[in-house]
Amino acid sequence: MTAAFSLDSRLAADTLAVADLQLSAVRLMNDATYPWLILVPRREGAVEIVDLAGEDRVQLMEEIATVSDVLRAMTRCDKLNVAALGNMVPQLHVHVIGRFAGDPAWPGPVWGKAPARPYADASREGFIAALRARLSAG
Amino acid sequence: MTAAFSLDSRLAADTLAVADLQLSAVRLMNDATYPWLILVPRREGAVEIVDLAGEDRVQLMEEIATVSDVLRAMTRCDKLNVAALGNMVPQLHVHVIGRFAGDPAWPGPVWGKAPARPYADASREGFIAALRARLSAG
Repeated sequence: MTAAFSLDSRLAADTLAVADLQLSAVRLMNDATYPWLILVPRREGAVEIVDLAGEDRVQLMEEIATVSDVLRAMTRCDKLNVAALGNMVPQLHVHVIGRFAGDPAWPGPVWGKAPARPYADASREGFIAALRARLSAG
Repeated sequence: MTAAFSLDSRLAADTLAVADLQLSAVRLMNDATYPWLILVPRREGAVEIVDLAGEDRVQLMEEIATVSDVLRAMTRCDKLNVAALGNMVPQLHVHVIGRFAGDPAWPGPVWGKAPARPYADASREGFIAALRARLSAG
């Protein structure tokens, strides 16, 4: 890193720390409606994928694949949604969301729907622990 | 390729051919509301990014970057949105969309909003020709 990385305050408020991969922080969106992870490359000032260095783009793609594998294996979701939008929070972050036919937003995208439904303490800690175990085993 | 690739019929109906990159067909969404390209990796049966072979994932990332660069340079958009959703059309496809502060869906995502506003013939052909020129120069 060429500059100290700090997580955007809105991402910090909406998500929970799961793990640090080589490039990205993995965070859990605190919304039990969907199994929803966010990858945040620890590159200060990064906004667009295309502006990452080439080797960071490749690493980001591999981390998207890792997180996708883990999330699908844990949730047996019907579909993965992978997206870098950033219209509201410019700091580069990639959503990896497990979707189910019949979930509240299906088949539309999840953004801008009902307010988040925060996890209950026990299910949140259990889910994060299981995610960490699988990510560190990968 | 191990099997003949055929474009999903809904993608074919909604989009226009622009160019073939090494892995992906580049298509223009026929909606003048947003500058909106779609990358379709020519891998028969592909649904999720994570299920592509590793070298295809790397190539897809580079093609996302190429198309992002071209679209941003041509449109001077404020933000890029990059997403693989596929809840309605399972065939793997990646949206690369130029967004503007104040566009009709801003700051929300573009999917599921007003019906597409097809391009007028002249502007469609001009835009596609310019895209082709930049993609082949890249």
